[in-house]
Amino acid sequence: MSLKPHPDRLFPVDSITRDVARQIYSKIKDLPIVSPHGHTDPHWFAKNDPFQNATELFLRPDHYVFRMLYSQGISLESLGIGEKELNEKEQRATWKLFAENFYLFRGTPTWMWFEYVFYEVFELNKKFNGENADYFFDSINELLKTKEFLPRALFERFNIEVIATTDDPTDSLAPHQSILDSGWKGSVIPCFRPDKVVDPEHEDFVNSIEKLAEITGEDTQHFSGYLQALRNRRLFFKKMGATSTDHGHPDPYTCELSKVEVEKLYSKCLLGDINHSEARAFRGHMLMEMAQMSLEDGLVMQLHPGSFRNHNLSLFQKFGRDKGHDIPVRAEFTQNLKALLNKYGNEKDFTFIIFTLDESVYSRELAPLAGHYPALKLGPSWWFHDSPEGMRRFRESVTETAGFYNTVGFNDDTRAFLSIPARHDMARRMDSSFLARLVCEHRISLEDAHTVAYDLTYNLVKKNYKL
Amino acid sequence: MSLKPHPDRLFPVDSITRDVARQIYSKIKDLPIVSPHGHTDPHWFAKNDPFQNATELFLRPDHYVFRMLYSQGISLESLGIGEKELNEKEQRATWKLFAENFYLFRGTPTWMWFEYVFYEVFELNKKFNGENADYFFDSINELLKTKEFLPRALFERFNIEVIATTDDPTDSLAPHQSILDSGWKGSVIPCFRPDKVVDPEHEDFVNSIEKLAEITGEDTQHFSGYLQALRNRRLFFKKMGATSTDHGHPDPYTCELSKVEVEKLYSKCLLGDINHSEARAFRGHMLMEMAQMSLEDGLVMQLHPGSFRNHNLSLFQKFGRDKGHDIPVRAEFTQNLKALLNKYGNEKDFTFIIFTLDESVYSRELAPLAGHYPALKLGPSWWFHDSPEGMRRFRESVTETAGFYNTVGFNDDTRAFLSIPARHDMARRMDSSFLARLVCEHRISLEDAHTVAYDLTYNLVKKNYKL
Amino acid sequence: MSLKPHPDRLFPVDSITRDVARQIYSKIKDLPIVSPHGHTDPHWFAKNDPFQNATELFLRPDHYVFRMLYSQGISLESLGIGEKELNEKEQRATWKLFAENFYLFRGTPTWMWFEYVFYEVFELNKKFNGENADYFFDSINELLKTKEFLPRALFERFNIEVIATTDDPTDSLAPHQSILDSGWKGSVIPCFRPDKVVDPEHEDFVNSIEKLAEITGEDTQHFSGYLQALRNRRLFFKKMGATSTDHGHPDPYTCELSKVEVEKLYSKCLLGDINHSEARAFRGHMLMEMAQMSLEDGLVMQLHPGSFRNHNLSLFQKFGRDKGHDIPVRAEFTQNLKALLNKYGNEKDFTFIIFTLDESVYSRELAPLAGHYPALKLGPSWWFHDSPEGMRRFRESVTETAGFYNTVGFNDDTRAFLSIPARHDMARRMDSSFLARLVCEHRISLEDAHTVAYDLTYNLVKKNYKL
Repeated sequence: MSLKPHPDRLFPVDSITRDVARQIYSKIKDLPIVSPHGHTDPHWFAKNDPFQNATELFLRPDHYVFRMLYSQGISLESLGIGEKELNEKEQRATWKLFAENFYLFRGTPTWMWFEYVFYEVFELNKKFNGENADYFFDSINELLKTKEFLPRALFERFNIEVIATTDDPTDSLAPHQSILDSGWKGSVIPCFRPDKVVDPEHEDFVNSIEKLAEITGEDTQHFSGYLQALRNRRLFFKKMGATSTDHGHPDPYTCELSKVEVEKLYSKCLLGDINHSEARAFRGHMLMEMAQMSLEDGLVMQLHPGSFRNHNLSLFQKFGRDKGHDIPVRAEFTQNLKALLNKYGNEKDFTFIIFTLDESVYSRELAPLAGHYPALKLGPSWWFHDSPEGMRRFRESVTETAGFYNTVGFNDDTRAFLSIPARHDMARRMDSSFLARLVCEHRISLEDAHTVAYDLTYNLVKKNYKL
Repeated sequence: MSLKPHPDRLFPVDSITRDVARQIYSKIKDLPIVSPHGHTDPHWFAKNDPFQNATELFLRPDHYVFRMLYSQGISLESLGIGEKELNEKEQRATWKLFAENFYLFRGTPTWMWFEYVFYEVFELNKKFNGENADYFFDSINELLKTKEFLPRALFERFNIEVIATTDDPTDSLAPHQSILDSGWKGSVIPCFRPDKVVDPEHEDFVNSIEKLAEITGEDTQHFSGYLQALRNRRLFFKKMGATSTDHGHPDPYTCELSKVEVEKLYSKCLLGDINHSEARAFRGHMLMEMAQMSLEDGLVMQLHPGSFRNHNLSLFQKFGRDKGHDIPVRAEFTQNLKALLNKYGNEKDFTFIIFTLDESVYSRELAPLAGHYPALKLGPSWWFHDSPEGMRRFRESVTETAGFYNTVGFNDDTRAFLSIPARHDMARRMDSSFLARLVCEHRISLEDAHTVAYDLTYNLVKKNYKL
Repeated sequence: MSLKPHPDRLFPVDSITRDVARQIYSKIKDLPIVSPHGHTDPHWFAKNDPFQNATELFLRPDHYVFRMLYSQGISLESLGIGEKELNEKEQRATWKLFAENFYLFRGTPTWMWFEYVFYEVFELNKKFNGENADYFFDSINELLKTKEFLPRALFERFNIEVIATTDDPTDSLAPHQSILDSGWKGSVIPCFRPDKVVDPEHEDFVNSIEKLAEITGEDTQHFSGYLQALRNRRLFFKKMGATSTDHGHPDPYTCELSKVEVEKLYSKCLLGDINHSEARAFRGHMLMEMAQMSLEDGLVMQLHPGSFRNHNLSLFQKFGRDKGHDIPVRAEFTQNLKALLNKYGNEKDFTFIIFTLDESVYSRELAPLAGHYPALKLGPSWWFHDSPEGMRRFRESVTETAGFYNTVGFNDDTRAFLSIPARHDMARRMDSSFLARLVCEHRISLEDAHTVAYDLTYNLVKKNYKL
C-alpha cells in the first residue's frame, strides 16, 4: 500500500469544490519557490557538504518538533538538546524516541510536512513509528551521503528561484560571498535582522554595538554614529543581495523621540541603565529610524511582533533561546503603529510588511490598516498559524477588507530546509481551496481565481519583496 | 455570455444544503426592505432630482471604494476626492481609474455589490474593467437621466418599506418635512445622532451646543438647559418619524456622575478645558442620560463604538473626515456597559442595540450580555464585517448563546443608495445559508428555519426598531 | 411522524464526510460516560429519592434556560426563581411559560439537549410548545415516580462509569460517604473547590475560614495553620475518592509572595481590610500554594477563570448568585500564568487543566502553552462554548499547535443530570465530525482517527483526571 501523500489532500471534500481546487492548484503547483523570509543556514549552500544525519537534520534544530515531545513529558536532555554533538548511538536513540511519539503530531502541520518529506523527498513508503524508526534513520542517512542530496542539488530539485536567510548586522556574510564567488547560480540572499543592536534589553546589545563600531569604523558611542553604522551595514547587505530587513519586537509600538531625547536615551541604553518603558521607547523610536532608512535605501521592512520570548525561565537558563517556549501575547496595532504609519505609511516607495501571532487582529486591525495605507502589506499567517486552519482563517478574515492585493504571498520562515517544498505546497493547496470555495459560491470567476492564485504564489511575492 | 449574478451565489456548495438554502431564500427574497439604519441623503427623496453621474454616485462618496484604491498607491487627488466638483473629463478619467483597478476588489463584498448594481439595476452585461469603463460611464449616466432612475422611482422599485437617515440634532429635517408635505408615500424617517453635541472632543462641539441653544431657546450654557434642549430635539425628531437614536463613541464606556460632578464637568467642556479621561467620563455619563431619555420618549438607542477615527493625520488635515482611515480598536463591553445595563438593562420598555468592530467580543461578551439583559439586542455585523464571511462569523458566534431572537435583522448602513438591494440580498442569502446548514445538520427543522428567516428579515427589524 | 433526534445530527452534510463521521462515531457512541467535572447533587444518589417534577428538574435550576427567557422580558418571578417551593399549579404555569417560549432556543445547544432528553429519555414523541406543555408536564412527572427514573437507575442506564461532583472544602461529604456505605456500585466522587476559602473578596470568606478551623482543629487565624487546614481537607477529599481540585478565579493571575508578605496579607484578609489588588495578589499566591499541594498529594488542578460574576447588581440583590448574569471578560494567560508555570509547569507529576471563556486565546496563548509545558493540559470548550460551534472552534484553533494529546476530553459541567447523555453525545458527534473532515482532507488516516476518537472520549479523560 502506498503512503504517498494523497493528491487531493487539503482540498475541500465536496466534489464540485474539490474539482475546482484541483484545477486552480494544477496551474500553480509547479511554479518556482520564491522564499523571501526564512532561516536556512547559508553555510549549507556555500560549502555544499552533505547534511549529517536524520536527527541532526530534522529533530535537534526544529522547535516545532521538540516542543510537542517536551509537552508530553519527554525531557530535552533525552532528545540531546543542549548537547554539542551526539554519537551515532545517541542519534539513533533520539530518533527512535521521536518516531515512537510521532502520533502526538496527528492533526498538526508538522505531521503533514514529515509525511511529504519522507515520501516525496526520500521515497520512504512506510509508516513512521517506533517499529520503523531504524529503517527511516538508516535510509535517510544513506541518501544524505549521495550527491542528489547535497544542499545545492536539493535547492535545484526543489525549484527554488531565490531564498533569503536571516542575518545579524555584524555578520560578514562570508557564506553569501562565497556562493557568489562559486559561480553556482542558486540565489541565496541575506536579510538584515538588527534585533540585537536595536533592542537594549537584548543580552548582547552592548557587545553588538561595539562590534558594529569595529566593523564599520563609526563611533557607535554616539547616536549619530550608531545610525551611520546601521546605514552603512544596510548598504553592505543590499550590495550582497538583500532586499529586506526584519524586526522582531515584543510589540509593534512606534514613537518619535526628539533628537535630544533619543541621544540621551541611547547613552543610558549603552550603560544598561534603563527600565522597561525606556527600552520600549527606544525600540519604538528605532522602528521609525528603520523606516526612514528603508525609504532611503529601498529595503523592504518586515515587522514580527508579539512573541513573549523565553517564557520558561529554568529551561532558558539550562538550554537558552529558541527552545519552543516563546509564547504569543495579545497584540495591538492601531495605536502602536500610528506614529510610523502617520509619518511613512503614505509613502508609495516604502513597503512595510507586518505579521501577527494574534489572530483576533486580522479582521479588526490589520485588514483595515492594510486596506488603507499604501505602504502597508500583510505577511502570511505566521508560526503557530502557518497551518491549514491558520491559513484558512487568515484568508477568511483578511480578504473581504484588504483584498488579495494587500497581501504578499507565502513565507516558509523555516530552518528545516527539507520541508520547504512541503510548506509551499501546503500554502498553494490552501489558497486553491479558498479560491475554489469563492468560485463555487459565485463570488469570483474561475478565470479570476486562476489569476489570483498565480499572483499569490508568485507575482505578489516578487513585487512586494522586490525580488 | 450573461454576467447576471448567479442565482445560487453565496449559498453553500454542497447540493443538499444548497437546495435547502434555495428553499429558505425563496420565501424571503421578495420581502420589502426595511432599512432602520443608514446614511442616504433625504434631499434625494425630497427633491427627486436625477442622480448626477456614475463617478458622483458610486465613487466619490464611497469610502469602501477609494480606501482600497488608495491602499494600492492611487492618490485621493487623482480620484477627485477633496475637489468640490469635477468636470465631465475628470469624472470620466476618475471612473476609468476605478474600472482599471476594479480587480483589487476581488473577493470583497464591494465586488459583489457592484456586480449586482451593474447587472440588476442597470442591466449592463459586460465585464467592468478599463476597457469597458467608458461604456459603463455613458450607459449609467444615460439611464440616470430617465424617470425610472429618479430617487423615488428607485425607492419604489427597490421595494423599500421604510428607510432611516442619520441626522444631526441641530438639523431642521426640512427634507423630511418636504417629503411628508409632498404626498409621496415613501417612508423616509430621521434618526437622532447627537455625537457632535455629546462628545466634547469633537471639533464642532462648542459651536453645536450654541446652535442647539438657538434652535431650542434653551440655556445650553448650563447642564440642565443642555439636557432640556436634547429632550426637546428628540421629541421633534420623534414627531418627524424617528424611532431611534444612534451614538458613535470611541468606546462603550458608561458611568454615572453625580449632578454636581457632571455640571462642573460640562462647564469645563464648554471651555474646552478637559483632558481625555474627562471627555470619556462626560461621554460615558451622557450615554446614561440618553438611555434615560429613551426610557421616557421610547426612542430605540443604538451604540456604535470602537472606531479610531481619522487615523491618518496628514490625510485628515488635507481631506477631512470619513476618508477611509477610521480603524477599529479592541473593544470591551462587559465592564464598560455595566453602569448603563445595571440601571436600564432590566427595563422591558427600553431597547438598546449594540454593534462592534471587534469580532472577538461576539461570543465572549455580546452574546452572553444579550442572552441575559432584556433591554439589550445585538445589531448585525457592522462595516468591515458587513460581508459574507463577517455575517457567517456573526451568526456562528452569537446564535448558540443569544439565540436568533436577541438579534435585530440587517442594517445596510450605507450612503450608496443604489447598492441597498444588493446588500439586503447578501444578508438574506447568508442567513438562508446559515439556516440551511442547521437544517441539514438536523439542528433545526425546515419549518422552523422558514419562520426564523422571515423573522430575521422582517419581523425582528420592525419590532426592535419600533417600525 | 417521529420526532426522534436524527441519527446523523451534527455530522457534516457532505455525504462522503458524513459517512466517515458515522463510522468514527459508531465506535465511540456506546463508550461509558466518564464525567470528571460537574455539578450534580450527590444527595440524589445517596438518597435515591424520585426527582420531584419537570419544573423542578429542568427549569428552576438551569440558568441556561431562564437566562434566555429573562432576556426576552420574562421575569424571574414569573418563573418561580427565588421562591422556596412552588405548588403544583405554579409549577404547571411556569412549565407552560417555558414551553410557549421554547422557540427562543432555536439554534442553541439547549434546544438539542431538550430534544434528546424528551425523546430519548422520556420517549415523548410530540413537539414541545405551549399546546403540548401539559402533556409533557404530566408525562414527565408520571415517569419520574417510576423506579426506572430513580437517580441510581438513570445513572446506570446512562452508562456512567464515574461522575465527579463539586464540593466545598468545609463540606462533610456525607452523601458521598453514604453512597460508599450503601454498597451501590455507582462511582460518585467529590472535587475540592476551595473558592470560598481562597478568595478574600467572597462574601463568605471569613466565615468559611472559621468553619475550616472548626472542622480541622487547625489554627486558621495564621497562614501556616490555614495552609495546614487546606492540606488536611484535601487529604480527606482524596480519601473520599477525589482526584481533582477546581478553582474559579476572576482571572488566571499567579504570583509568588514571600512568606512574610503573604502572612501579613492573610491577616489583612481576615480583617476584611484589603483592596482589589491585594485580593488579587492573595488569590494569585494561593494558586501557587494549591499547585504545590497538588504536587504533594497528586490531585489534578483545574482552573476556570474569566467570568465576571453577578454582573446585574439589582438582580443579584434580589435573587443571589448563579442567575444567568455571569459575563465573560477578556483573558490573558501568557503573563498571568508565568509564575505558576515557571515553578510547576515542568513537573511531570503535576497535571494542571485550564479552561477559558475567551476563545481568542485558544490559538494565541493556550495551544502554545499546552504545546510546551508538560504539566499543562487544555480543558474542553466551556460554558457558553459547550456547543457545536464552540467545540468546532476549539478543535480547529487548538489542534494544530497543541495536538489532540494535550487536551483532556469532554466535561459536561452540568447540574442538569438528565441532559448528561445528550451532552456527551454532542461532544462525541462533534469530535467525530472534526476527525472526519481531517480524514477526508487526507490529513489523518481513518485508522488513526478511530484511535484519536477513542482517546478523546475515554482514555485521555481517565489518564488526565487520574480516574
